[in-house]
Amino acid sequence: MDLLFLGTSSGTPTRSRNVSGLALTEETGKRWYLVDCGEATQHQLLRTPLSLHDLSAIFITHVHGDHCYGLPGLLASAGMSGRREPLEIMAPQGIKQWVDATLTMSRTHLPFDLVFHATEQLGEWRNSNLRAQAIELSHRVPSYGYCFTEARPDPRLDVEKLDREGVPRGHLWGRLARGHDVEFEGRALRSDDFLIFNRKPRRIVVGGDNDTPELLNEVARSAQVLVHEATYTQEIAERGKADFGHSTACAVASFAESISVPNLVLTHFSARYQANPERSPSIADIHTEASGVYSGRLFLAEDFARYRLGRDGCLERYREPARG
Amino acid sequence: MDLLFLGTSSGTPTRSRNVSGLALTEETGKRWYLVDCGEATQHQLLRTPLSLHDLSAIFITHVHGDHCYGLPGLLASAGMSGRREPLEIMAPQGIKQWVDATLTMSRTHLPFDLVFHATEQLGEWRNSNLRAQAIELSHRVPSYGYCFTEARPDPRLDVEKLDREGVPRGHLWGRLARGHDVEFEGRALRSDDFLIFNRKPRRIVVGGDNDTPELLNEVARSAQVLVHEATYTQEIAERGKADFGHSTACAVASFAESISVPNLVLTHFSARYQANPERSPSIADIHTEASGVYSGRLFLAEDFARYRLGRDGCLERYREPARG
Repeated sequence: MDLLFLGTSSGTPTRSRNVSGLALTEETGKRWYLVDCGEATQHQLLRTPLSLHDLSAIFITHVHGDHCYGLPGLLASAGMSGRREPLEIMAPQGIKQWVDATLTMSRTHLPFDLVFHATEQLGEWRNSNLRAQAIELSHRVPSYGYCFTEARPDPRLDVEKLDREGVPRGHLWGRLARGHDVEFEGRALRSDDFLIFNRKPRRIVVGGDNDTPELLNEVARSAQVLVHEATYTQEIAERGKADFGHSTACAVASFAESISVPNLVLTHFSARYQANPERSPSIADIHTEASGVYSGRLFLAEDFARYRLGRDGCLERYREPARG
Repeated sequence: MDLLFLGTSSGTPTRSRNVSGLALTEETGKRWYLVDCGEATQHQLLRTPLSLHDLSAIFITHVHGDHCYGLPGLLASAGMSGRREPLEIMAPQGIKQWVDATLTMSRTHLPFDLVFHATEQLGEWRNSNLRAQAIELSHRVPSYGYCFTEARPDPRLDVEKLDREGVPRGHLWGRLARGHDVEFEGRALRSDDFLIFNRKPRRIVVGGDNDTPELLNEVARSAQVLVHEATYTQEIAERGKADFGHSTACAVASFAESISVPNLVLTHFSARYQANPERSPSIADIHTEASGVYSGRLFLAEDFARYRLGRDGCLERYREPARG
């Protein structure tokens, strides 16, 4: 499971950081998922190996423009590039109606179907490789985090159970092994009930904008990776220079430490934090603050930074950024 | 009067060309105007000297996404950067309602007023330095060109007339000279009625998407510069590979030649035309086609290319692109 950051700035783009967008790629390296779609996410994608044809689903955390204004353009470009596969979009109330209205206003006719799911009523979304659930967070508007869990970690067939239940060897076993539910003698057999998973599934939790990291407690405890905004340092927040509704580096890092999540990736930095560590405030201040309270593997995301979550639960940054 | 191209690709962005956006800058070098605002226009601006604080007005040619999807993000960023001055937007039917709906959906509260004018009923828009009028074109949706004319080319006071009408020397003369209308003894005096202009005003015509360049006949005849889409070459159009509603390089160049407009800038190229002239089709094919029928000064726009229209009516490209 790979993470590729397409935008890591809060509110407005800067010359080196776009607004929010994060690609989660399956281990196969092809099928991928997009979390948030700020303006110019499609432009960022042009500099990565990812194709809009292989995009499986989009997950929007909340309605603020820096998290969704890129949707109509990305959809239109997917259409112009010949996509025909339906595309699923999980999004909070308001997004579906706005996307529809935008496409209508601009007379844009997509050659593929959009299948919207309201984040508020998502329950669990899944396909053969991934399960996703939404967690309500605390922000100025309704905001959600998404918990992505590997659906079938190193599966093998439960042969004893299959024999016990009289399911004959052959194509039924094959289909069950590949994750398909089947029918046998009028009975519905769920693949998951006949698979044994050889390790703990990998799990990545991606927060939306949020001032209370503890709301992710339940899902993040069993995650290997937490990706969370750290818009400000404590100092800026205390000086009253911060918009409300966000987390500080210290708050997120303390929460991550308290639940012992082994990998923490901070993102969504206020544009005031500069790349040059000799200037103040700088991105280095955020790192200093977080590393003071968090003892796990800490990463500060950059645009086009790419990470791999191995089966051992360890997150590694690729040496080469994805940028082409 | 300067032109700075922010996007020169048709439909979708490429790695080297964004979708439509064109900045027209006053000779003072500060106040500027934006024609069309495709997605990521605000990102392009980050690489130029132009500030959203000095943006005087926006002119949208038509509702297609590659010409307007960047509006909400640009407005939101102008607000976040502290703009308080009202902003005028000329736009065809549908845009105002969509911008309002987008800002409402995303809970974006601009700290400045938007003043919309319907392009369909624009008549003439003007401020102290510039006049603009809209011309209806022919495209798949209602589309407009804009004709920008210097309002006061090298003005001097008509002293004889002022004396004749008994207007006393002093601050009233000063205000009239600077382009302000004044009141004198109950009479409204229009600045323009007391100014003599020492040369022909500069005029730049910028077309929207359009399959009939001749519709610009009347305004472009007296222009020094025509900026027009040349989405395709004749060959691609004849092979039926082109969307309808656009102009070929040949058609635009022939029109420009027929009315003897001295400077022609082509833009809005289909993404199929490649930068490398050894590949086919390439941008060079568009140049070849246009230069075959047009004998004036021909330019093919590139992102960040900057041009100056001198008082002599000659358009010159700056050696250095604006890109920073």
